[in-house]
Amino acid sequence: MCRLLAYCGAPIFLDRLLVEPEGSLISQSRAAREARTVVNGDGCGLGWYGEREEPGLYRAILPVWSDGNLLSLCRQIRSGLFLAHVRAATAGGISAQNCHPFAQGRYLFMHNGQIGDYARHRRRVEAMIPDALYPARAGTSDSEAIFLAAFSEGLERDPVGALSRTLAAICAPMGEGEEPLRFSAVLSDGETVHAFRWASDGHPPSLYCREEGDGLLVASEPCGLPSSEWTSIPSGSVLQVRGRQGARLTRFELLASSPSARAA
Amino acid sequence: MCRLLAYCGAPIFLDRLLVEPEGSLISQSRAAREARTVVNGDGCGLGWYGEREEPGLYRAILPVWSDGNLLSLCRQIRSGLFLAHVRAATAGGISAQNCHPFAQGRYLFMHNGQIGDYARHRRRVEAMIPDALYPARAGTSDSEAIFLAAFSEGLERDPVGALSRTLAAICAPMGEGEEPLRFSAVLSDGETVHAFRWASDGHPPSLYCREEGDGLLVASEPCGLPSSEWTSIPSGSVLQVRGRQGARLTRFELLASSPSARAA
Amino acid sequence: MCRLLAYCGAPIFLDRLLVEPEGSLISQSRAAREARTVVNGDGCGLGWYGEREEPGLYRAILPVWSDGNLLSLCRQIRSGLFLAHVRAATAGGISAQNCHPFAQGRYLFMHNGQIGDYARHRRRVEAMIPDALYPARAGTSDSEAIFLAAFSEGLERDPVGALSRTLAAICAPMGEGEEPLRFSAVLSDGETVHAFRWASDGHPPSLYCREEGDGLLVASEPCGLPSSEWTSIPSGSVLQVRGRQGARLTRFELLASSPSARAA
Amino acid sequence: MCRLLAYCGAPIFLDRLLVEPEGSLISQSRAAREARTVVNGDGCGLGWYGEREEPGLYRAILPVWSDGNLLSLCRQIRSGLFLAHVRAATAGGISAQNCHPFAQGRYLFMHNGQIGDYARHRRRVEAMIPDALYPARAGTSDSEAIFLAAFSEGLERDPVGALSRTLAAICAPMGEGEEPLRFSAVLSDGETVHAFRWASDGHPPSLYCREEGDGLLVASEPCGLPSSEWTSIPSGSVLQVRGRQGARLTRFELLASSPSARAA
Repeated sequence: MCRLLAYCGAPIFLDRLLVEPEGSLISQSRAAREARTVVNGDGCGLGWYGEREEPGLYRAILPVWSDGNLLSLCRQIRSGLFLAHVRAATAGGISAQNCHPFAQGRYLFMHNGQIGDYARHRRRVEAMIPDALYPARAGTSDSEAIFLAAFSEGLERDPVGALSRTLAAICAPMGEGEEPLRFSAVLSDGETVHAFRWASDGHPPSLYCREEGDGLLVASEPCGLPSSEWTSIPSGSVLQVRGRQGARLTRFELLASSPSARAA
Repeated sequence: MCRLLAYCGAPIFLDRLLVEPEGSLISQSRAAREARTVVNGDGCGLGWYGEREEPGLYRAILPVWSDGNLLSLCRQIRSGLFLAHVRAATAGGISAQNCHPFAQGRYLFMHNGQIGDYARHRRRVEAMIPDALYPARAGTSDSEAIFLAAFSEGLERDPVGALSRTLAAICAPMGEGEEPLRFSAVLSDGETVHAFRWASDGHPPSLYCREEGDGLLVASEPCGLPSSEWTSIPSGSVLQVRGRQGARLTRFELLASSPSARAA
Repeated sequence: MCRLLAYCGAPIFLDRLLVEPEGSLISQSRAAREARTVVNGDGCGLGWYGEREEPGLYRAILPVWSDGNLLSLCRQIRSGLFLAHVRAATAGGISAQNCHPFAQGRYLFMHNGQIGDYARHRRRVEAMIPDALYPARAGTSDSEAIFLAAFSEGLERDPVGALSRTLAAICAPMGEGEEPLRFSAVLSDGETVHAFRWASDGHPPSLYCREEGDGLLVASEPCGLPSSEWTSIPSGSVLQVRGRQGARLTRFELLASSPSARAA
Repeated sequence: MCRLLAYCGAPIFLDRLLVEPEGSLISQSRAAREARTVVNGDGCGLGWYGEREEPGLYRAILPVWSDGNLLSLCRQIRSGLFLAHVRAATAGGISAQNCHPFAQGRYLFMHNGQIGDYARHRRRVEAMIPDALYPARAGTSDSEAIFLAAFSEGLERDPVGALSRTLAAICAPMGEGEEPLRFSAVLSDGETVHAFRWASDGHPPSLYCREEGDGLLVASEPCGLPSSEWTSIPSGSVLQVRGRQGARLTRFELLASSPSARAA
């Protein structure tokens, strides 16, 4: 299981949230090293919005606790919207190209969970990626494939609907008793953050949120403050955060893929 | 342009051919570093047949001149059939999964050249990979895709025919004035070595051979001995080497993909 | 704490001992990933004796469970004397140069434990390295420094005495209440294996041995067979294994550094 | 020979100087790849001053042309004082710890050149590093050793004098006909940039400067603008740049190491 954190609010140095708090993404990984929790040693990544329209991206395959570059970036970069991810590989080998977040234009995406029995479904999921973006398919992970496929369902106009239709299309031929698709994920365009929590078997990976100053924090596990300060995002829902306008929680359920969406 | 070397003959320490000769694969890369020739700094790989049916495989993304592991393996491993490759990336990012040789079962494959304008053709080429091998698609390079696609054309029964039909299928929709497909490549099953030299525009990367003791050496450039000791493998041909039974050169031209081959 | 394994006996494929057994070095690391034990994700290494006088050496900084090269080498290499190590860094950053085993001429050395408070002692320990070997000091770890320093105490003539004198010299100025020096280590010259277990506070890392066919296995933890099949090497002792002549256990205690040893 | 660039002036996105100009540090490396110039494929590094007192630092061992992280950082980071370096290894193996720039407190340092026959002098140079900084010695390169040693000569109070005394101490025992010490280097404390050009044989690596907007650029070779727009920094001199107060060129010659400097 991977670990992830997203922040949206007043610009803040990344180490304030990723390094300093007890149980933070990076100290979690250190704890893992001491066998107090699961290990996430298959690479890490950071995506952040700064002064350019497209986000900054740092991804590397060293365990996060070994990565001096990551620590220095967290000290130096101040951002009002960033995503961080520590990977425990499920599908796709260990390479920087398989590390989260994934970037496409001004979008960032990261994912915790997996398409069950992905080897059987991979070909079909990759076929959903639009031609124009197929050259951007740099790795082999299920997560990157979901992200790119959602562009063919209108991710740029309707991110929630597009991901719903994409997951519906992936799940459509899956039968009873098959491995589930689990999807706790964060998507951003640099202004809005969408945090999804859904699974075909009703058991998505955990996802929590809490206020952080004027802003909002989403994380795979409570960190920094006691669990009581965090709210679990319910299974089958999506949290939408837009700058300082606050957060809105709505249901997230699968929609049939609409031809018009794809035609648009 | 990548560099490659294959050897088939009496078992020999790899450094005898890869490190010691002037102009050897590894000293070539050092020369490149001194700007006397093109640079090949995007990773390297070694495949060799030993006591197991499947070959050994070492691939890494450090420039070959920095790779202490590679040098030690070349000192230690003695083999009667091995392939070595130094990469200058054309299609596919820098990752160990994109380094040559590629292994599948008892087969090894490495390639110098490229599918021109691969981004436009990638999807179509990947579609030729048989379902059973699609999970083995670990990288994103054109070379690995050609190799895996050839299994659907009968690579295991008829390697020359299978590669011919695969290249024909790839080239079929290419029009006049498009970027060419260039293919200097080596394939082995552990007993036989096939060295192909072909290009859709008649200008494949160079490929040479010479006797080495009882065995045979194939290389992208003459090394170790003067060019006069090497024979250029003609464009549009394939050299087949089987143990010490000597080499046989035959024409290599494109065949239409045969349904029966695929059905087989 | 690192993990290590050494084997001396009839030539054997490395995967027989390093990959296949439940609880083997590599499956241990996988278990770590599942949080059933401590994590060793700071690189791994393999040293083996083959047909050359000097050993083969493979060291890399990926977590062992991510390292396809290591797995392939374990499948291919058959050796009658090899050492394997999985690192959890204590002193010295994460780099291939800090991975064990260390090689010098025909010697291999690996170490589990540490010089307590090494930052304070490093300079002094490095000063013990003989001038002729100082250029071979490639990393910054305490382990490599101990190994190279022991050459100045006569490691080539008297390995047990040399390591005893070296540890004595390191410990000499350490006072009460200081961090201890812990030393479970394996040294080989290609014919003999020495397995040391000693600590200045009497609590060295665990070290076990058992017969394996005609040969002998030394490991930081029991693996493959139940603990009852393994013998703990007592603290303050050294096990010497010479080919199939069997093993001899003797006391290992600190000797004052002898000027004559160094003069030799 | 390495390549380097330093900028001091109005804050600017790094890609403006490191990526976009023809012949820039990164396009130079690409050119190298096409064999139009010497190759620098042994790692790269970036140091920059941002909002924190200590600089940001990114160093990695991939060839610069393969490093997506570096390109993204250059796009995102805007800084008024930064250093960039592409390495062609002379002394010290390939590891991130041996990549330039080196950071210590608020200082950054990078170096083009070498201590001739470093293996013979290394021990002596490392002995000049003050005890307090010895634990910070993370790699094995001559460049890092010079930098850390200069702290014992008063680098924080008198950077020019400290480096002069350090080089004098290193050169003192070197005889006629020995390999020279060559030193083109850049040092910064976040406010001032010092660019040194000196060699014991009078042949230091090239170093150029030119105005860039309000600021100043120092580089190992002219780039972006024709050579006629660049000024060669004379051998045996040091250029001191302080914010927008302009640059001052003074002689740089070796001073005897002063006990008082060290006592301070």
